Amino acid sequence: MSISGNQLIAGQWIAGNAGNFHGVNPATGAELEPVFTCADEAQVDTAVAAATACATEFANTSPQKRAEFLNTCADEIMALGDELLERVSAETGYPRARAEGERGRTCGQLKLFAEWILSGDYLEARIDTALPDRQPLPRPDLRSYNQALGPVAVFGASNFPLAFSVAGGDTASAFAAGCPVIVKGHNSHPGTSELVAQAIARAVTKCGLPAGVFSLILGAGNRVGAALVTAPGIKAVGFTGSTAGGTALFKLANERPEPIPVFAEMGSINPVVLLPEALKNSAESIAEGFVVSLNQGTGQFCVNPGLVLAVEGEGLDRFIGATTEALSKVCAGVMLNKNTQLGYQSGVAHMRDQPGVEQVAAGEAVADGEGFTCQAGLLTVSAEDFLGNRALQEEVFGPMSLVVKCRDHAELLAAASALQGQLTGTLQCTEAELADYTDLVEVLRQKVGRILVNGFPTGVEVCHSMMHGGPYPAATDARFTSVGTRAIARFVRPICFQNYPEGLLPDALKDSNPLGIPRLVNGESTRDAM
Amino acid sequence: MSISGNQLIAGQWIAGNAGNFHGVNPATGAELEPVFTCADEAQVDTAVAAATACATEFANTSPQKRAEFLNTCADEIMALGDELLERVSAETGYPRARAEGERGRTCGQLKLFAEWILSGDYLEARIDTALPDRQPLPRPDLRSYNQALGPVAVFGASNFPLAFSVAGGDTASAFAAGCPVIVKGHNSHPGTSELVAQAIARAVTKCGLPAGVFSLILGAGNRVGAALVTAPGIKAVGFTGSTAGGTALFKLANERPEPIPVFAEMGSINPVVLLPEALKNSAESIAEGFVVSLNQGTGQFCVNPGLVLAVEGEGLDRFIGATTEALSKVCAGVMLNKNTQLGYQSGVAHMRDQPGVEQVAAGEAVADGEGFTCQAGLLTVSAEDFLGNRALQEEVFGPMSLVVKCRDHAELLAAASALQGQLTGTLQCTEAELADYTDLVEVLRQKVGRILVNGFPTGVEVCHSMMHGGPYPAATDARFTSVGTRAIARFVRPICFQNYPEGLLPDALKDSNPLGIPRLVNGESTRDAM
Repeated sequence: MSISGNQLIAGQWIAGNAGNFHGVNPATGAELEPVFTCADEAQVDTAVAAATACATEFANTSPQKRAEFLNTCADEIMALGDELLERVSAETGYPRARAEGERGRTCGQLKLFAEWILSGDYLEARIDTALPDRQPLPRPDLRSYNQALGPVAVFGASNFPLAFSVAGGDTASAFAAGCPVIVKGHNSHPGTSELVAQAIARAVTKCGLPAGVFSLILGAGNRVGAALVTAPGIKAVGFTGSTAGGTALFKLANERPEPIPVFAEMGSINPVVLLPEALKNSAESIAEGFVVSLNQGTGQFCVNPGLVLAVEGEGLDRFIGATTEALSKVCAGVMLNKNTQLGYQSGVAHMRDQPGVEQVAAGEAVADGEGFTCQAGLLTVSAEDFLGNRALQEEVFGPMSLVVKCRDHAELLAAASALQGQLTGTLQCTEAELADYTDLVEVLRQKVGRILVNGFPTGVEVCHSMMHGGPYPAATDARFTSVGTRAIARFVRPICFQNYPEGLLPDALKDSNPLGIPRLVNGESTRDAM
Repeated sequence: MSISGNQLIAGQWIAGNAGNFHGVNPATGAELEPVFTCADEAQVDTAVAAATACATEFANTSPQKRAEFLNTCADEIMALGDELLERVSAETGYPRARAEGERGRTCGQLKLFAEWILSGDYLEARIDTALPDRQPLPRPDLRSYNQALGPVAVFGASNFPLAFSVAGGDTASAFAAGCPVIVKGHNSHPGTSELVAQAIARAVTKCGLPAGVFSLILGAGNRVGAALVTAPGIKAVGFTGSTAGGTALFKLANERPEPIPVFAEMGSINPVVLLPEALKNSAESIAEGFVVSLNQGTGQFCVNPGLVLAVEGEGLDRFIGATTEALSKVCAGVMLNKNTQLGYQSGVAHMRDQPGVEQVAAGEAVADGEGFTCQAGLLTVSAEDFLGNRALQEEVFGPMSLVVKCRDHAELLAAASALQGQLTGTLQCTEAELADYTDLVEVLRQKVGRILVNGFPTGVEVCHSMMHGGPYPAATDARFTSVGTRAIARFVRPICFQNYPEGLLPDALKDSNPLGIPRLVNGESTRDAM
């Protein structure tokens, strides 16, 4: 099946009723075929109704069935072959190796969730058996576990057309939990979105699941996105994107007659703190790693290192010198789309205009012409200027970083304390320094979701212990991650059964433990039957 | 130390700067001594500043230290002896047995959390070890666990002056997580609040904890409550009370520059569904249990059975007849305060005025005179009238229930499907009926947090498997419970350490597993050292 330009609504590929648009190749600025149609509100409602109608059936599938489904999704995505990789590159400007790597990450993620739900851990099954003779009152039999929350709306991100998009982490974790998913595909990669949706649709059919389990909607975010988030059938929202977009959805969701949780991962400037001994020992190699991290994916990562904090001196001068030299050799990169390019240009200009900010480095000049290219950049500012100016904490999406020069330890601590919530915080340090800087570490622990030592924030491992999220405004709910197996917790809620006939309980709570999962029985963790 | 009428702010007992009020004995209407002062916004800020200043120190205490603190709180509450029990009765109208039972529940709850945090389960420690040779990219060492969220604001409930108040479930679970707590005491039991705060303050001192770990604020909810929820240092809110109160706090918290989670348990009408065979077999004994449940605590429980759904017929007639007779013998009960009494009276009147509603039973008439008493009541309405009228789903706080008479199974299902979110749903049924009514069970599972068979919703066990919460408007976040050990999850968030020097990691994540807690190491659950 080639790319049709249609929506997938409850198993039907149909044209949208609200206008149309083309994908664009950001490396050339040329429009890509075919034309894509946009859904209207009624089409969103149809998708939500189908998801609602099958929510109970899907929630009640066995973990085995959903694992089969997740694995089949991965297989079907692989089966798209070169067509998918070529479309990703055409729509994003990413080289084939990046497209291939991201496909691997996406399929690996689906398979990890498949494996994880079989373990049953995420069900958090708990049983407290009856104590009929307890005084002054008997205890009833009480059993609880996590059940699926219901239909989930997922908003694909521009910068990860596979791993944070149609079959990305939000979709995979919602499917794993047993929630139907409606994806609002990002307009920056509509063809990629449709191909992946085709793969999921084939997996739905092959696994004999109801078609309402998955829909793909395309259209304007403020129109179909708002319709999706305010639809009464939607019970949670996953989003990766800008602060403005995430905040708007969060507000809409909270103002519903029935408010619903929004898990918006809205990015971050990911402070990198360079401590004096580390700078003294290895300013040049830190600069080298920093420049690579800054330019990965043309800086279009939510964990891009957009801020550097350090005490001024010879070590920091060497770091800035080495970074400046390395950046000067960085070729112009292709950005994802025209809006991203414009946002980057105006963001850098706005930053440069702030009091005390100096641009000290830039990548190679961009030749006028085709494509949405940009230049990497390094700026500096004093801690004094940084502390009074919240504009300097605004994320500039792209390969730009601001170095905050602190006079001393106290000013470094003040700058760290002034930070908003972040996805990550990085320390370049010796082990002895880390032990000495407990005050700084404690400040960072309050500000970030992930704390790194002697690395760089780009590279978000999909695993059990990952935390990709953080205090607001990095994310709307710091208690949850959008990457890794903990992500399932967003889409389930506990339900408790009191004195329920044993034979009619969900398998997870039956005496015989037919799923063989770990359970907390009267306070003790066990996989045994009762 | 007798009752002073002061606030406890950061270890100091001081007079509030914003007026004063008296407690009132609801059984007599008489004012109680002493006079209590109200805090102003600046005093709230002082408490928040003290909590913020010690948040890291308290978060970093060992589970052992916090268990000692929780147990000491329980001991100090017991040491208050008769003075506490007498003050509870004087301020609430509850008989001594109820006060004693609730004290037992409160202290048992503190001790359960103490025991539970020693198990380390709630830390959800996860470790993925480095894979330096992995292709195409190495995996770093990643470790995550749950850390305390920061200072928590707790709003005491009127109806549980001990178990859902100053040292209630919200406070106990926040302390267990390592979060400082500032309680806004309910004005309905200020003396009880102060006595319990004295006990906690003694426990803080005995355990050598910083005074900022606990403060008690008294005052007007819309003034000090709003100041508390909007204070930047507060990171989460626990609330038990009315829908109006909970919704107002939820809105304030979401509109902050940094939104914070609000866990508001706002009550419910707790539908009880009577299935035909059960009615046929035991209408009279169901009625007997129902009347007891309805009148527990003069109906002032968030799990009070305020709604009955059943198919009309001889069985339902027998149930209504037996309930009417039993209710007619119920003496007028004392309500918590004048506002509760007025709210109940107007709520019943409003309900009676709805189209199709008939009052079929009432408790014994209340003699005019002293005290805030009320009459129990039973009303009926047809499913047809119920379905079109959302006013019939409004909670009337007190001993009143509405029986919805359905023509058939389809109408019963429609009535259940029309319900808003609820704390509980109860089925009176035979086991064969339960197996037959899967459609009804599935509807209830989407609507409630706890589903009971052949019991009544009053009686919320404090244990590992309890879920006391539910879909909105029963609570603001259906994924969390305010009762039982799962409640700690509200006040923690995961933090991830990447390539962090092993010796400097928190104990929960060190190779040697010094806390002896269960951990997920490379996907396998183990208590072993690495």
